[in-house]
Amino acid sequence: MKGTTRLSLTMNQPTEPKADKSGVRRHNLSLVLRTVHDAGETTRAAVAARVGLTRPAVSSLVEQLLDLGFLVESGKTFSGQAGRPGTVLKPAGTGPAALGVEINVAYVSVCLVDLTGTDRIRRTVRLDNRAAAPDVLARAAAVAAEALAEAEALGLGPSGAALALPGLVSDGTVRQAPNLGWHDTPAERLFGDALAALRPAARRLAVASDNEANMAALAELRFGTPGTPRTFLHLTGETGVGGAVVVHGELLRGAHGFAGEIGHLVVDAEGPRCRCGSRGCLEQYAGQAALLRAADAADVDDLAARAGRGEPRALAALAEAGRMLGRALSGAVNLLDPEAVVLGGIYPRLMPWLAPAVTGELAERVVSGLWPADAGRLRAASPATDAARGAAALVLHDILADPLSHTR
Amino acid sequence: MKGTTRLSLTMNQPTEPKADKSGVRRHNLSLVLRTVHDAGETTRAAVAARVGLTRPAVSSLVEQLLDLGFLVESGKTFSGQAGRPGTVLKPAGTGPAALGVEINVAYVSVCLVDLTGTDRIRRTVRLDNRAAAPDVLARAAAVAAEALAEAEALGLGPSGAALALPGLVSDGTVRQAPNLGWHDTPAERLFGDALAALRPAARRLAVASDNEANMAALAELRFGTPGTPRTFLHLTGETGVGGAVVVHGELLRGAHGFAGEIGHLVVDAEGPRCRCGSRGCLEQYAGQAALLRAADAADVDDLAARAGRGEPRALAALAEAGRMLGRALSGAVNLLDPEAVVLGGIYPRLMPWLAPAVTGELAERVVSGLWPADAGRLRAASPATDAARGAAALVLHDILADPLSHTR
Repeated sequence: MKGTTRLSLTMNQPTEPKADKSGVRRHNLSLVLRTVHDAGETTRAAVAARVGLTRPAVSSLVEQLLDLGFLVESGKTFSGQAGRPGTVLKPAGTGPAALGVEINVAYVSVCLVDLTGTDRIRRTVRLDNRAAAPDVLARAAAVAAEALAEAEALGLGPSGAALALPGLVSDGTVRQAPNLGWHDTPAERLFGDALAALRPAARRLAVASDNEANMAALAELRFGTPGTPRTFLHLTGETGVGGAVVVHGELLRGAHGFAGEIGHLVVDAEGPRCRCGSRGCLEQYAGQAALLRAADAADVDDLAARAGRGEPRALAALAEAGRMLGRALSGAVNLLDPEAVVLGGIYPRLMPWLAPAVTGELAERVVSGLWPADAGRLRAASPATDAARGAAALVLHDILADPLSHTR
Repeated sequence: MKGTTRLSLTMNQPTEPKADKSGVRRHNLSLVLRTVHDAGETTRAAVAARVGLTRPAVSSLVEQLLDLGFLVESGKTFSGQAGRPGTVLKPAGTGPAALGVEINVAYVSVCLVDLTGTDRIRRTVRLDNRAAAPDVLARAAAVAAEALAEAEALGLGPSGAALALPGLVSDGTVRQAPNLGWHDTPAERLFGDALAALRPAARRLAVASDNEANMAALAELRFGTPGTPRTFLHLTGETGVGGAVVVHGELLRGAHGFAGEIGHLVVDAEGPRCRCGSRGCLEQYAGQAALLRAADAADVDDLAARAGRGEPRALAALAEAGRMLGRALSGAVNLLDPEAVVLGGIYPRLMPWLAPAVTGELAERVVSGLWPADAGRLRAASPATDAARGAAALVLHDILADPLSHTR
């Protein structure tokens, strides 16, 4: 994997136009491609009106993007808001694509997303990943290699991969992932080497990585229900509780990339010891393991079924988890003043039982008084926005930011 | 005060150059003025090298800034890093200036800061401000009016004022300030009208406002010890505990401007009722009132003296406040991953007794493991950076961003 370009891990820096002429054209190619991507379907005239370039300039850029396989024309004509009817332009459903890989305690999930944002391939394998990191990453690479073989048959050529990992991640390395037992694991390198061994063609693939909670928030941001606020807290209930902070449409990463650890907000200072070394962290009350144990449920399906039947122990466990979620969230809301809190992972299916306790705490404890129970500020994550899709969104963003660096 | 230009309340938007020619010149005037301001002393040649404009262009801009009274030349010559020795340029110590006004529960503090960033006038009046808002704001205006009279004698002409207020502030209004008993108070208007009644010339003065904790953080950012990190949490111990979040050199304001309320992080869910409506907020343990009560001390001087003599009750109160500070801060650090935590207000003088407990909690509870006791990440606020100076910094920023709109 040496010599590959590193994907940018943040969405924070908009691409600056380079001063020279080829830099400007590169920038404009990105501008046109992003405009078509965001619109889904549009025309040259509408793109020109939108980006403020001349019609001939846009046509020339569109021709290059068609030639390179980033855009396609459909036969039909389309009368948009601006200009004459024209041939419809769309992002290509073949060619450049993004590989997202989520590695979690109990599964590996791989998806391949094309330029339209559609999940074209999805493979999820249940595994016990509390094992040596190289073994786990080799297994994940094997699942990814199968997806790549399938992609080739579909005419898709991934131009980057990103890993969503359940721990603190910086510079391609998992600093610590207590639920996996990993410590200073060079995940990008191990995954890339394993993938290249299985598929030599994948040697060119750039690999990026980030915390799974950040990736899930990114999925919500890029692929979530329209109308999702741009400033929100995102919690993912898994074995642990992952958190991410999105401010004005960008992930807040902090000074070292470790921001967002809502799962380790202290809700009871004298509470049970957490794997992170602290005591009484939210995760100890609202993580999947704690919740199933308290409810005496086998899995989340079982928990939802028991709660649905009104089983007192399940209801009490969910109410307690909701109270603790609300308590931690009230602190996070007081600190960050988001428009909304989005609950993902196992939480969306448990919302009927969690939400009353969460909103009760928020209504009592948020200083601004902006958190009444019914304002729609507490919401379930959009369906089909998981960390694997978020990882793919990271790669997709990179392709759209500089298509020329993603040609074969 | 009607018809005055509103000062921008955030530092988040850099001034964009306008497309037209006069817009570009306006932008370049700001660029040159900020460059001289940041350097303290410099030459035309060094400015030209720094901003990437030609020497003649810079000279023309400098002439205009000299004419308008924003810059002065000193007789001496100066051999900087770039270019030939030249006449030294400095920001003017007369002319345009910034008025900062802090209104707190027990005092009003007014400062007038010139373009060099120097506090030229400072008036602090002890008052009990738990009174009707119009009365309090009229008293503050009276203190400000005296400062303005003195300013005139010094040849300083404030071109804007900003209020630092102990509550949730948005759009010029204090939404709530529990420690003052204010609710939906149009503070900017009340202050501006009272000031204009006392000094008709002040009618032209634009008035801005923000939370005192944000202002104190801004003071630390603009006037703090060199080397202050650009991503930090700032806590101000006063009657309450104010908080602010600075990310990459900018205040994090949240969706409605209410971010940073660290004082209302819950440290004990079943703890004493707080004025905000919640229970067990940090403020109930580490605010000045709670601390003095627990230590049985008359004021902060008395508390420090008692602790210095090793009085057990004072030491216990400080250790408990430190533990609670550390507990709340560990949550904030896990969420935001700052480079440092800065303690201001009453805390700097109490650091010897607070710091061990604070760092102990941080070392135990911060997931990233980046918070050992001795890494210098926990620091006292720089001397002479208070909320009044922060308010002045806000006005100063506005002058530097567009000097032409601040000429008389």
